[in-house]
Parts: sequence; C-alpha cells; structure tokens
Amino acid sequence: MSITWTPIQKQRFQELNASEILQEMCFETQHERDRAYQEQERLLVGRGKQKLQEMLETTRRPPLSVLEQQLVEALTKKGFVQVVTPTIISKTALAKMSVSDDHPLFSQVFWLDSKRCLRPMLAPNLYTLWKDLLRLWEKPIRIFEIGTCYRKESKGSLHLNEFTMLNLTELGLPEDQRHQRLEELAALVMDTVGIDDYQLESESSVVYGDTLDVVFKGIELGSSAMGPHPLDDQWGIFDPWVGIGFGLERLLMIKEGSQNVQSMSRSLTYLSGVRLNI
Amino acid sequence: MSITWTPIQKQRFQELNASEILQEMCFETQHERDRAYQEQERLLVGRGKQKLQEMLETTRRPPLSVLEQQLVEALTKKGFVQVVTPTIISKTALAKMSVSDDHPLFSQVFWLDSKRCLRPMLAPNLYTLWKDLLRLWEKPIRIFEIGTCYRKESKGSLHLNEFTMLNLTELGLPEDQRHQRLEELAALVMDTVGIDDYQLESESSVVYGDTLDVVFKGIELGSSAMGPHPLDDQWGIFDPWVGIGFGLERLLMIKEGSQNVQSMSRSLTYLSGVRLNI
Repeated sequence: MSITWTPIQKQRFQELNASEILQEMCFETQHERDRAYQEQERLLVGRGKQKLQEMLETTRRPPLSVLEQQLVEALTKKGFVQVVTPTIISKTALAKMSVSDDHPLFSQVFWLDSKRCLRPMLAPNLYTLWKDLLRLWEKPIRIFEIGTCYRKESKGSLHLNEFTMLNLTELGLPEDQRHQRLEELAALVMDTVGIDDYQLESESSVVYGDTLDVVFKGIELGSSAMGPHPLDDQWGIFDPWVGIGFGLERLLMIKEGSQNVQSMSRSLTYLSGVRLNI
Repeated sequence: MSITWTPIQKQRFQELNASEILQEMCFETQHERDRAYQEQERLLVGRGKQKLQEMLETTRRPPLSVLEQQLVEALTKKGFVQVVTPTIISKTALAKMSVSDDHPLFSQVFWLDSKRCLRPMLAPNLYTLWKDLLRLWEKPIRIFEIGTCYRKESKGSLHLNEFTMLNLTELGLPEDQRHQRLEELAALVMDTVGIDDYQLESESSVVYGDTLDVVFKGIELGSSAMGPHPLDDQWGIFDPWVGIGFGLERLLMIKEGSQNVQSMSRSLTYLSGVRLNI
C-alpha cells in the first residue's frame, strides 16, 4: 500500500477539486492506481460538467458574484452604505498606511509608475471617505466596499494576485463597544456566507497593530482592527472605530469545501468552481 | 450681459454637476454674478447633501453598483451567463487582439511588467472562455461580464482611467440573424438602463473593424462587433457571433442627466454622483 498518485495525476485531481481523501489514496500496484485514476477522473469530469450545466440552467452567475450580492444585501439592510472606490491608488495614500519602502507589504505592491499602484487593501480609500462623510452624516458612519485588491503573492492554494476584499467599517461608536461590535460584524458576515464554526483569535498585524482574526481550521478568513489607532492621525480621524476585512474567495473555498482558492477566483480556467479543461 | 463665471466658479459648478444652462449664464456686473454664484452654489450644495441623505436612508448603494445589479438580473433572465475574469492579462492575449506596439490603443495600456498589463477591454478574456465553453455547452453560447477596464485617457468629461465595462456576447447564432440580434441586445441594455432615444450608427473601429455604435446625442454609449471576424482565427473561433459593449459610467451620466462622467465612477471625491467637498 505504498503507491501514490503520480505528480501528473495529483495535479489533475487538484485542478478538478478532488477531495483530500481521494488525493491521499494509496495502492498496491501501479495498475490498480492507474485504473482508479481513470475511474475517478471520469467521475470528477462528469460532476464538473453537471455543475456547469446546472449553473447554465439556474443561477447563471458565478459563486463570487452571488456571494457579493448576498453580502451587499445583508450589510445594507443593517444600515451599512456600499462605496465603490478606485483600484488605482497613489503612493502617498499607501505611505499614509505606513506601507513604504521598508515595509513587508511594499514588495507585494504592483506599481503602474513611480506614483501610482494597484491597491493592496481597501483601507486607504475608506479612510479618505470617512473624513468627508464625518462632515456630512451623523455618527456612526457605517460604510463598506467589496472590490478587487492586488498583491504579488507566492501562488499557493491560499493566495491570489488579485482577490476580492470585503472591508466593513464603523466609525464613531462608543469606545467600550468596539470588541462586541467586531464580534457582531464577524457573525453577520459569517452567517451570510453560511460558515458556523469559526474562531476569533488575537494577532499582531504588520499594518494594523493588534487585530482580531476570524479563523476556520487554521485558515485566516478575516482580520479586524480598531481605533484610536497610530495611523488615524495621518488621516485626520480622531473617533473610535472598528473595521473587519475578508477575502471572498477564501470564504467561498471554505463554504463550498473546495481544495483551492483559484477555483473560486476571477479566472480563465475555472467557471463556477469547475475547471474548464474537462 | 457679457460677464461670465470666473474659472474657479465654473470649476466648482462642474464639480457640483450644475446644469448646462446654469454653467452658461451671463451677467451685467461682477457684483450681480458673484451674488448669483453664492446663491446657486448654496442651492447645489444643499441638493447634494439631500441626495446623500436620501442614499443613506434608502438604497445605501451607489448608482454604479445598482445599475450593475439591474443589468445582471435582466441579462441572466434572458439566458446570459455572467462570468468574472482577471483584470490582469498577458501581453500575449493583448497581441491576439492585434493590440501590439504600433496599435493606437497600445499606448493607453497600463503595464505591470514586460508581460502583464491591466485589461483595456474584456474581449480577450471572453474569447478565451468561448473556446472552452464551446466544448461544454450547446450553442449559442451566451456570456457577459461587467467589470473594471483600464485605459490611460486624456482626462475629460467623457473619459476615465478606470471604468466599468459591460460586454455581452452570443456565439454560434445563425449568420443572417446577427444584425437583428445586435439590435435586440442594444434594446435590452438600454431598456434596463432606462434610456429611450438612442441611435444605432455604423462606424469603423481600430480594433474590431466595422461596428455598430449605440449613440445618444453624439455621445458613444456602446459599440458592437460581429464575427466571423479577422481576429477569430487567433482564438480558434469559427462560429458566427455578436458582441456589444457599454461603459456603465457613461450610461449613468446620460440617465442621471449628469455633466461629468467622474461623478458616476469609482471615486474618492464623489459618492452617489455627489461631490463630497460640500
């Protein structure tokens, strides 16, 4: 029982989102393994085709777009206002997040020229809007954005160069309610996605200082921060706040029991979680 | 009656989306003009604040997101499948659209490195998906994407560096139905947006050859193409097709009677069409 899948077989199973159990099977002989591979590959391809056919006949939308809409509906219903901001941001805005040359995140930034880059996070844009909205709306200011962010990541089963971020913020709440509010916001998002058994863990973030992470079986799904915060001065913000961010592709990976985050992302090789070379 | 607004007054009125009539007013004296300016600026600021308050109390969503959702609903209902594809594309994909060094569009492309750029259009990604979907679904293949595209544009009242494109395609329809189908698709989109009095005009495009444009009072709102097309070979496509593309911000500008496209775009200075420095 020591014969495992060949690298090519293993890669194909990963593409096809095979279960972990299937991917770790062992065999007595190569012949047995190769027969099992043919059988299982055929089943997975069939399942993929069926899933694509169902998508064509029912939702006609990829899970990423469906989840985005579900979140928009849940959050606006709770009084949060959706914003859509530029994906191209200035070096200055990044520097005001303390992301400059010597910062770990800096090397992951995609630059367009010496002054502009693709946003690696939504926070600088939300800080900018907060400042204006404080003059225009009563506190607390509740805004969120769901949009593409960009980081040069070592491609792995958990990372994407372009991913979809939800950042949900509340500015101007009583300081002693911040922790409870963050737990409520995490619950609101996780309920909407349909993930129950997550944990909240404290962690230190390179950008935000101490944060509260939303974790599922060791995988970080979301990360939160609160103010007053050392960065607030830069943005002219003096009220207490909370903010929580999630990568939608990771949420979907967990929800759909998928084995790789690529299958849930903006993609030319996957549609609706199904590999298209089937 | 020869005294017009000062450049600063004029700029402020543009920011505030003042009507053309207001922007072109003339006065007998500077004193009269400046009094009118104060009065009108105050009215516009008040109207903006009211609009933001209404947004906070009703939709809690910017018009760009609302329109996107309306289009998704209308198109999926008619059997079109939504796709979400990468905004970072390869130089190779761009070259297969014939957009290479000597092409007019080439200088408008934002490059990330020598091999990758931000997509200036959705077409290459949709061509790629067509090829796979032809093996998986019955013809006609009906897909669309709504997503950000990027072009270095001379900033003007009609252009944006990042804008939201809808590209709606049907592959594998009878060749003699292409013209009629394009008219139907244009009508479907324009009905959903709520613009009646548009025209269809034939034009020559640098990328697509002869096209049919959707025009409103001289402003190009949408542009369509059909195949068989000289580019199809590159992508392994041999069936007849039609495709039609729209810039969502321009559609909104017309629908909302706004004077500048920036007010409808992904923005840090506008929310829901309202300038935030009020």
